[in-house]
Amino acid sequence: MQQIDPQACPTQGLSTFNKVICLAILLSTLLAIIETEPVLTTNWPQLFWWANLAFLLLFSAELALRIYIAPYTQAHLAQSRWRFLRSGWTLLDLLVLLTFMPLSEKLPLLVIRLLRVFRIVRLSRLTRFNASLNLLIQAVRKRKMELGISFIIAMSLLLTTSILLYLVEGSSNPEDFGSIPRAMWWSIATLTTVGYGDVTPLSPLGKICAGITALIGIGIVAMPTGILAAAFSEAYQKAKVQSGPTEQ
Amino acid sequence: MQQIDPQACPTQGLSTFNKVICLAILLSTLLAIIETEPVLTTNWPQLFWWANLAFLLLFSAELALRIYIAPYTQAHLAQSRWRFLRSGWTLLDLLVLLTFMPLSEKLPLLVIRLLRVFRIVRLSRLTRFNASLNLLIQAVRKRKMELGISFIIAMSLLLTTSILLYLVEGSSNPEDFGSIPRAMWWSIATLTTVGYGDVTPLSPLGKICAGITALIGIGIVAMPTGILAAAFSEAYQKAKVQSGPTEQ
Amino acid sequence: MQQIDPQACPTQGLSTFNKVICLAILLSTLLAIIETEPVLTTNWPQLFWWANLAFLLLFSAELALRIYIAPYTQAHLAQSRWRFLRSGWTLLDLLVLLTFMPLSEKLPLLVIRLLRVFRIVRLSRLTRFNASLNLLIQAVRKRKMELGISFIIAMSLLLTTSILLYLVEGSSNPEDFGSIPRAMWWSIATLTTVGYGDVTPLSPLGKICAGITALIGIGIVAMPTGILAAAFSEAYQKAKVQSGPTEQ
Amino acid sequence: MQQIDPQACPTQGLSTFNKVICLAILLSTLLAIIETEPVLTTNWPQLFWWANLAFLLLFSAELALRIYIAPYTQAHLAQSRWRFLRSGWTLLDLLVLLTFMPLSEKLPLLVIRLLRVFRIVRLSRLTRFNASLNLLIQAVRKRKMELGISFIIAMSLLLTTSILLYLVEGSSNPEDFGSIPRAMWWSIATLTTVGYGDVTPLSPLGKICAGITALIGIGIVAMPTGILAAAFSEAYQKAKVQSGPTEQ
Repeated sequence: MQQIDPQACPTQGLSTFNKVICLAILLSTLLAIIETEPVLTTNWPQLFWWANLAFLLLFSAELALRIYIAPYTQAHLAQSRWRFLRSGWTLLDLLVLLTFMPLSEKLPLLVIRLLRVFRIVRLSRLTRFNASLNLLIQAVRKRKMELGISFIIAMSLLLTTSILLYLVEGSSNPEDFGSIPRAMWWSIATLTTVGYGDVTPLSPLGKICAGITALIGIGIVAMPTGILAAAFSEAYQKAKVQSGPTEQ
Repeated sequence: MQQIDPQACPTQGLSTFNKVICLAILLSTLLAIIETEPVLTTNWPQLFWWANLAFLLLFSAELALRIYIAPYTQAHLAQSRWRFLRSGWTLLDLLVLLTFMPLSEKLPLLVIRLLRVFRIVRLSRLTRFNASLNLLIQAVRKRKMELGISFIIAMSLLLTTSILLYLVEGSSNPEDFGSIPRAMWWSIATLTTVGYGDVTPLSPLGKICAGITALIGIGIVAMPTGILAAAFSEAYQKAKVQSGPTEQ
Repeated sequence: MQQIDPQACPTQGLSTFNKVICLAILLSTLLAIIETEPVLTTNWPQLFWWANLAFLLLFSAELALRIYIAPYTQAHLAQSRWRFLRSGWTLLDLLVLLTFMPLSEKLPLLVIRLLRVFRIVRLSRLTRFNASLNLLIQAVRKRKMELGISFIIAMSLLLTTSILLYLVEGSSNPEDFGSIPRAMWWSIATLTTVGYGDVTPLSPLGKICAGITALIGIGIVAMPTGILAAAFSEAYQKAKVQSGPTEQ
Repeated sequence: MQQIDPQACPTQGLSTFNKVICLAILLSTLLAIIETEPVLTTNWPQLFWWANLAFLLLFSAELALRIYIAPYTQAHLAQSRWRFLRSGWTLLDLLVLLTFMPLSEKLPLLVIRLLRVFRIVRLSRLTRFNASLNLLIQAVRKRKMELGISFIIAMSLLLTTSILLYLVEGSSNPEDFGSIPRAMWWSIATLTTVGYGDVTPLSPLGKICAGITALIGIGIVAMPTGILAAAFSEAYQKAKVQSGPTEQ
C-alpha cells in the first residue's frame, strides 16, 4: 500500500482508502480544468480557493501517510522513508502538491496557466488511465511500419494537394492560399474531413481541384485510422488472453 | 392482446387492429415533432388542434378496449381490469394521453415543451424500435471493457489537445481558447471531424498545433466507432442465430 | 445489336459503333451538366446550341439505324420495326431526344430545368453504370434487416439529441433550435460529422450537450456506413465468383 | 553507390554519405515549402538566400562526385561518365539544381512558383517515399474493379443529389445552387462529410432534402475508403511476406 498499486484501481479488491484517493484525483483534475474558465473564477472565487485548500490538505495527508508507512511495506521501491521520499513518483507528487497552493497574482499568465495545468499530471497515477495508454502504445508499436508507410502516403498527398491549390488559388486568394504552409491548413482540414470552412477555394478552377482532392484523397488519409483501429483491437485481444479469461 | 405484444409489430401475423395502432403511434410522433415548429402552428392552428383531438380519441378508445378485454386474455401481466389499470405501462399510456389534450397557453414555455416531447415516449411501445435498441445495448455491454479503454484514450487525447491549444492560443484568442473547457469545444469539433468552424486557431503556432492534432488524433478518436460497429454486427449475427435461420 | 447490349459496354468485344455511342452519351451528360451554369451559357450560347444539335443528329441517326435493323436481329425484344418502336426503352430514347431540341425561352424555368436534367437519364443505358447500381441494390437487399435496425437506432439517436438541444437551446436561440425539426438540421449535420457550422449551440449548457452528443453519437450513426461497406464487398466477391475467375 | 540506391534509405546499412544526402533532401524540401510564405521571406530574406546557396553547393558536389565515380561502380545504369550524365535521373537532378539558384525577380509569378515547387520533386529520390507510393499503387491496381464500381456509385449519388438540390434550391439560392456544377460543390462537401459550410441550403425543403442526402449518402460515398484501406493492408501483408519475416 506504500503507493497506489498500478494494478489496484480497476479491481474490486481496492481498499476504501485507495478508492477515495482515486476519486479525489479525478475531482481535482475536473477542478483544475474548470478553474481555467474566467467566468467561473470571477463569480465564485471563494469556492475554488476552498476546494484547492481541501485537496491540498487531503493529498498532503495522503503523502505523509505513505511516507510514514513506507518502511512497513515490502515494496521493492522503498525500504526506508528517505528512499521513498527520493523516488521519482514521490517527488512528482510533491511538485503537484505545490501547484494546489494559492498562486500569487504577480506571476506571468503563462506560468500560472502551466502550474494549473500541471495538476492534471496526477491523472497518470490512475491505473486504468495508464493501462489504456499502454495498450495504445503497444498497438502503435506493433504496426509501426504499416502506420509509418500510410502516414508517408498521407503526407505526400497533403503536400501534393497543398501545392496544387497554392498554384491554382495562390494569386486570386493570397491570404488563404498564398503559400504552401497556408494551403496546407486548408488541405489538412479537407483531407481529414474536418472542414472548418474558414478557408475555401473561391475560383471555379480552385473548387474543381478541391472537389477532386476531397473525393480521391479522403480514402487515402483515412488509411492510418483503419490500421490503428485494427491494431488496437488486436492488442486488446492479446492483453485479454494474457491476463486470463476473466471476461467474455 | 391485452397490450401491444412486444414481439408483434414486425411479424406478418400482426392483427389489423395492432397495425393501425402502430401506424397511429408513428403518425402521432411525427405530429408531435412538427407541432414544435412555430411557423406551422401559427399558419394552421386548427389542423393541429383537430389532429390532436383525433389521436386523443383513438388512443382513449384503444386504452378503454384494452382495459375492457383485460380479464379475457391469458396474459401474465393482468388478471383483472383493476390490476391491468395499475400496471406501469397502462399508467404511462394514461400520462401520454393527457399530453394530447389542448394545453393551456398560461403554462410556462418549458412545461409545454416537455409535455409535447413526452408524447414521443409512446414510440417505445413499438416492438421494432425496442428490439433495435436492445441489440445496441447488448453490443455495448459485450464490449464494454474495450469501448471503455478506447473512450479513456479518446478522452486523454481530447484533454491533451485542449490544454495544448489553451496554452498556445489562450492569450491571443481568449474568447475561444481562454480556458480548457472553451478549448475543449474546439477539440471535440476537430477530433470528431465535425469541424463547425465557429472556433478555429488564428495564430500560426496555433494552426500548426491544430493541424498536427487533426492528423494524429482523428484515428484515435475514431477507435470507439470501429469497435462499436464490429460489436453491433456480432450482436446482430448472434441474435439472428438464436431466433432461427428465418432470414438469409 | 438492335439495342445497346446491357453486357456490352465494359467488354473488350464491344463494336466501334457502340463505343462511339457510349462516349457520346457520356459527353452529352457532361454537356447537360455544364449547360445549367448560366455563366457558361451566357458567354458561349452558340457553342451549346451547336453541340446540342450535333448530339440530336447523332442520337437520331443511331435510333433510326436501330429501328431499321430491328427485324434483322434475333433479339427477343423486337421481331418487327413497329414492335421495337413501341418498346419502353425506345420510347424513353425518343423522349430524351426531344430534350436535345432548342427549348423555347417562354417555358417556365422549372420545366426547362427538368427537361435539361432529363437528358442525364440516358446514362442508364450504359452497362457499367447499371451493373454498379445493381450490385449496390443487391448489397442493400442482402443486409436489409441489419441496415434497417442500425438505421432505426441512428434515427432514435437523432430524435433524442434533437429533443435535448431543443429543450436546452430552444429559448435562447429560437431561430436555430426553436423547434425539433430545426434542431434536427443541427443534429444531422453533427452526427454525420458534416458540421456545416451554420447552426451551433451558443449557451454553455447547449455546448456541453452538443459535445457529449458528438462524442457518443458519431459511432452509432456511423454503424450503417460500416455495414453497407461490408455488404458491398460481399456482394462484389459473390458477383465475381459467379461471372468466373476472369480477374484476380 | 553511383546513385542513391532505391533500397538503401530505410536500411541500417546505409552509408553515412547517403544518410547526409537523405537528410539534406528532406531539409531542402522543408525549405522549399516554407520559402513560399511571404511573411518569412520578407523578414529573413538573407536566410533563404544563404540556405539555398548551401543546398546548391551540397547537391552540386554530390552530383559531381556521382559523375566522377560512375565508371568505378558496377551499376547497370551507367558504364561511363557520359552515359551516367545522359540518364533520366541525372538530368532531373540537374534540373532541380537549377531551381536552387537565385531566381530573377523579373520572371512571372507563376513561373517562379513552379520553379520553387519543382524542388520538391527531389523527394522522389528517397527510397522510403517511393516504396510507400508503390505499395499504394499496387493496392489500387489489385482492387481496381471494386474501387471503380464503388466510385461509379459514388459519382451517381453525387450527380443525383446535385440535381435534386439544383431543382429544389436553384431558384431561391441561385448563387450557390443555380447550376448543377454549383450544387456539386455543396454535394461533394456534404457527402464526403467535409462540410465547409460556405454553401448550405436555406429553404425548408432544401434542408429536408439535404438532411436525407447526408443520412443516406455518406455510407455510399465512404465505400471506396473502406475498400482502399483493406486493399492497402492486404498489399502490405503480401509485401512483408515477400521481403521475408524480418518484422513481426
